[in-house]
Amino acid sequence: MLPLLTRIDHVGIACRDLDAAIGLYTATFGLEVASLEVNEAQGVREAMLRVAAVAAVSAVSAVSAAAPGYVQLLEPLADDTPVGKFIARRGEGLHHVGYGVSDVREALAAIGGTGIRLIDERPRHGSMGASIAFLHPADLGGVLTELVQAAGPA
Amino acid sequence: MLPLLTRIDHVGIACRDLDAAIGLYTATFGLEVASLEVNEAQGVREAMLRVAAVAAVSAVSAVSAAAPGYVQLLEPLADDTPVGKFIARRGEGLHHVGYGVSDVREALAAIGGTGIRLIDERPRHGSMGASIAFLHPADLGGVLTELVQAAGPA
Repeated sequence: MLPLLTRIDHVGIACRDLDAAIGLYTATFGLEVASLEVNEAQGVREAMLRVAAVAAVSAVSAVSAAAPGYVQLLEPLADDTPVGKFIARRGEGLHHVGYGVSDVREALAAIGGTGIRLIDERPRHGSMGASIAFLHPADLGGVLTELVQAAGPA
Repeated sequence: MLPLLTRIDHVGIACRDLDAAIGLYTATFGLEVASLEVNEAQGVREAMLRVAAVAAVSAVSAVSAAAPGYVQLLEPLADDTPVGKFIARRGEGLHHVGYGVSDVREALAAIGGTGIRLIDERPRHGSMGASIAFLHPADLGGVLTELVQAAGPA
């Protein structure tokens, strides 16, 4: 079986205050904000912070496996959103992990075929123009798992 | 400020049964086991599963930012270990995130200087010969955060 996952695309972190969380990650680790978006469908305001040695990545930018990873900070738009409920139940912290795939539709078909339940039967819009889909944590050892096909040429 | 973090090195996932979890990740995603270790000091039996497009990575293997990421599966050696307590309290699932750094001592000094509490004042031995150190989740929005200086030439 070929590996379906090409990289760790991001770790998703639930936070109560996005601006404070951005301040923490920039001050502590020197990360930079690559994208700031509101995703009404997912009920979040979110930031993507790039994790990468900048010089090294520019040298290999044509190689998709060398794409930077991101810290995705997620602030719920309301208490009754998935991230709002997550924080109410478990507090702030690690929410999900997103892996890069070269073709999210093919990956969904392959993974669905193994019996893993799909939260998203079809891809939807994710951060920075990506096509994404979530897999059910109950079938993956409690880990909410996202597949990410980055926008643009692979 | 220069970015301290060069990549997402791994996501650490707490599981009750390491062999079952390895089976799940290999069958579902085609990941391969890169390392299988017992770390008595941390109270875990663990596997590192490589997440990478193999061909792409071999083409850029000289670039440290293109180092593969890993899924780290952690099975507690006993109930009274940190991972054992985590599972008892929260169930299986995402436990921590590990970021690559080029020099873990320098990174600890820089991060400690910002006021973040360090779980490890000095590096200790991590997976696959790495030097690692943990930062306190209470100062990082509930996220247990690990710094990883990979073994061998950077």
